[in-house]
Amino acid sequence: MSHLQQSFTVQFVYNVFFTEKLFDTTNSLFADFFHQQATSATQKKLLFVIDSGVVETHPGLVAEIKAYFTQHADVVDLASDFLIIPGGEIAKNNPVFVEKIVDAVDTYGIDRHSYVAAIGGGSVLDMVGYAAAISHRGIRHIRIPTTVLSQNDSGVGVKNGVNYKGKKNFLGTFVPPIAVFNDSTFLTTLDDRDWRAGISEAIKVALIKDKAFFEWVETNAHALAARDMDAMQYLIHRCAQMHLQHISGGDPFEMGSSRPLDFGHWSAHKLEQLTNFELRHGEAVAIGIALDSIYSQQLGWLTDADTNRILTTLRTLGFSLYQPMLDADNSAGVLKGLSEFREHLGGQLTIMLLKDIGLGVEVHEMDATLVRQAIATLREHELSTTV
Amino acid sequence: MSHLQQSFTVQFVYNVFFTEKLFDTTNSLFADFFHQQATSATQKKLLFVIDSGVVETHPGLVAEIKAYFTQHADVVDLASDFLIIPGGEIAKNNPVFVEKIVDAVDTYGIDRHSYVAAIGGGSVLDMVGYAAAISHRGIRHIRIPTTVLSQNDSGVGVKNGVNYKGKKNFLGTFVPPIAVFNDSTFLTTLDDRDWRAGISEAIKVALIKDKAFFEWVETNAHALAARDMDAMQYLIHRCAQMHLQHISGGDPFEMGSSRPLDFGHWSAHKLEQLTNFELRHGEAVAIGIALDSIYSQQLGWLTDADTNRILTTLRTLGFSLYQPMLDADNSAGVLKGLSEFREHLGGQLTIMLLKDIGLGVEVHEMDATLVRQAIATLREHELSTTV
Ligand SMILES: NC(=O)c1ccc[n+]([C@@H]2O[C@H](COP(=O)([O-])OP(=O)(O)OC[C@H]3O[C@@H](n4cnc5c(N)ncnc54)[C@H](O)[C@@H]3O)[C@@H](O)[C@H]2O)c1
Ligand SMILES: NC(=O)c1ccc[n+]([C@@H]2O[C@H](COP(=O)([O-])OP(=O)(O)OC[C@H]3O[C@@H](n4cnc5c(N)ncnc54)[C@H](O)[C@@H]3O)[C@@H](O)[C@H]2O)c1
Ligand SMILES: [Zn+2]
Ligand SMILES: [Zn+2]
Repeated sequence: MSHLQQSFTVQFVYNVFFTEKLFDTTNSLFADFFHQQATSATQKKLLFVIDSGVVETHPGLVAEIKAYFTQHADVVDLASDFLIIPGGEIAKNNPVFVEKIVDAVDTYGIDRHSYVAAIGGGSVLDMVGYAAAISHRGIRHIRIPTTVLSQNDSGVGVKNGVNYKGKKNFLGTFVPPIAVFNDSTFLTTLDDRDWRAGISEAIKVALIKDKAFFEWVETNAHALAARDMDAMQYLIHRCAQMHLQHISGGDPFEMGSSRPLDFGHWSAHKLEQLTNFELRHGEAVAIGIALDSIYSQQLGWLTDADTNRILTTLRTLGFSLYQPMLDADNSAGVLKGLSEFREHLGGQLTIMLLKDIGLGVEVHEMDATLVRQAIATLREHELSTTV
Repeated sequence: MSHLQQSFTVQFVYNVFFTEKLFDTTNSLFADFFHQQATSATQKKLLFVIDSGVVETHPGLVAEIKAYFTQHADVVDLASDFLIIPGGEIAKNNPVFVEKIVDAVDTYGIDRHSYVAAIGGGSVLDMVGYAAAISHRGIRHIRIPTTVLSQNDSGVGVKNGVNYKGKKNFLGTFVPPIAVFNDSTFLTTLDDRDWRAGISEAIKVALIKDKAFFEWVETNAHALAARDMDAMQYLIHRCAQMHLQHISGGDPFEMGSSRPLDFGHWSAHKLEQLTNFELRHGEAVAIGIALDSIYSQQLGWLTDADTNRILTTLRTLGFSLYQPMLDADNSAGVLKGLSEFREHLGGQLTIMLLKDIGLGVEVHEMDATLVRQAIATLREHELSTTV
């Protein structure tokens, strides 16, 4: 009996750019990226996949992109068609869309050194990233996130995925993008729900890692709710930065026991599913944050004052913190989220709770009675504030 | 306009073990592996997927594995069912098998820290590796290759994949296994075609990298053809080692311009497809090696004597070096393999040719007339040797 040991490291590098009007012909950022990537060997191709919600609210976008690449024709060969994919969770629920992209990769001869660029919310980005990752064992993938959540969280990280038979993110891979372009112009057309939803991911990282950032959000909650773009750009930049640091500072592909930034997420994933994805991911996370903050309070870890600051900030932003699916009679449903969460992450159950604002601490079990009690508290709160 | 730069490295480590009678209760290698992997946190699960060709020739295997884990019950929780998948290329052609594995991952609650072990030839291993790679963004995958080709080449590397609408390996990922167990006992039941087929991958690496190894194969060709197990074990060990070194010494996930070990493969892939996978991968590679050796000879790179040594060695091993699909009238077919090969690898066309035995050199184009001429030479050779 003998063995050969294999050992190697792979380096991954990519930039997250912050810009406005990415496809304005006077903005050379995107063209410069392709110039820098160019090798003498071959002309690369570029296939665009766009979220239908973006196309509807930016009806000139496709023409703008075409004009951009007429101006910068030398940098890359634009595929003649643009794929438009329905925005929202449906993009991840229906396997036909992954197939559509894989087929386009074949039709347009997109090879491993060519590009698939996705413009859209986190759902379309997750799905396109997955399709690109499995085609030819991985095509270069550019993300152009158009929602708050995708610009500050999902779009800057290393995960992609689709749902499978109703199971959230059951299929997916860890594959970094080749570049991310955060264009704030897209955010102006978001409806209020999507503008708001992504803010919960910033609150999530702030609560477990950065008290000062939480206090900034608390102070700017009214401005954010009133759609102040400067405040939003600061929030996105800081949140994206914290996500990137968490990834590079830890275990990027989550191979060991290290954890993703998922405070408030165990119940959020389940709530999304229980509401048939009626609830946005970020909206569900806001409820999950509220729930696990109250649970932390019940453990005596978080003071009443701090718990209230969290709930108040979420409410000021316009989040609704109670959802009928949380209801006691259905709480077996939400509690099932605990075991599903463990299973998806693998290994032991690990839940992040709060010892203080800015200080997350991991636990390995949650008490069902206490969870039900936290849900009840949330329900009371909501009834009293909405009366 | 600002940007954040993300940069990180990920380390991958795995062992390729060489053993006999892996599931004999007195062989503790497999159990030891799980012991070493164990963490206090949770008991891990293990799901087996087995090639039908292996089950048929080793009818006691499932019972043996069950007995093994009765003896070593503490190391891992064995899933109650074993999935049996038809062996051969059909495993990669029919998408239903990937789905079967993904469903089993769900049914048996196999999480990211649990294991899917595949026992079989390269086809089943490629398919199971892919299914494991996309489930929960990657489940730990153990490979137990049972053919010569999978023990010395496909099973020890970092690639997996399935065919899509007849396109070879169109879907796949780069994901290393967590361990590989090469058990020579399995090789005794291979039919002659499969025993032989894998030898061509050893000749491939030898021809481009290691003259001494080629000469060893040349000297031992009769013994190998007569199914001498000691010779085969040496061949597999050396070939696996060279593959592992190529991967770790270069660009493991082929993100840059570095190349896989694919001498003789551009026409081989096409021939497999043109013959509806009637031809084994290794058989097609033997033809591809012969073709590109003659092409190298025609360029004046390889001497007539060396070219003959290569062809003679392949023939002594029992390979048939001509296939009707190579025929002039269909040569548009094989030549199309050049552009498909470029597309699958991405970037520029790069073909490995021989300047000498043990010395591969890359070129970026092949002349269609010369290729046709090489095919004609191969046809003549074959007619004259079989008369
Ligand atoms: N990969 C990760 O690491 C990760 C992390 C967090 C969340 N996610 C996933 O992200 C998804 C949620 O993404 P999301 O919150 O961005 O929502 P979304 O992608 O579901 O989009 C919500 C809606 O906004 C529309 N839209 C998108 N951009 C728009 C714009 N600029 N103007 C107007 N409308 C626009 C869409 O068409 C859709 O109808 C979930 O599937 C979640 O699981 C992934
Ligand atoms: N991933 C990679 O890097 C890589 C590299 C080279 C080849 N491949 C792929 O590997 C596949 C070919 O694999 P292969 O040559 O191992 O053949 P195979 O897996 O197609 O198996 C050939 C036949 O042998 C049977 N079989 C397997 N083990 C047996 C045993 N011990 N006794 C009796 N019968 C047995 C199978 O049931 C099948 O009928 C191709 O799809 C090829 O593309 C992958
Ligand atoms: Zn989230
Ligand atoms: Zn091969």
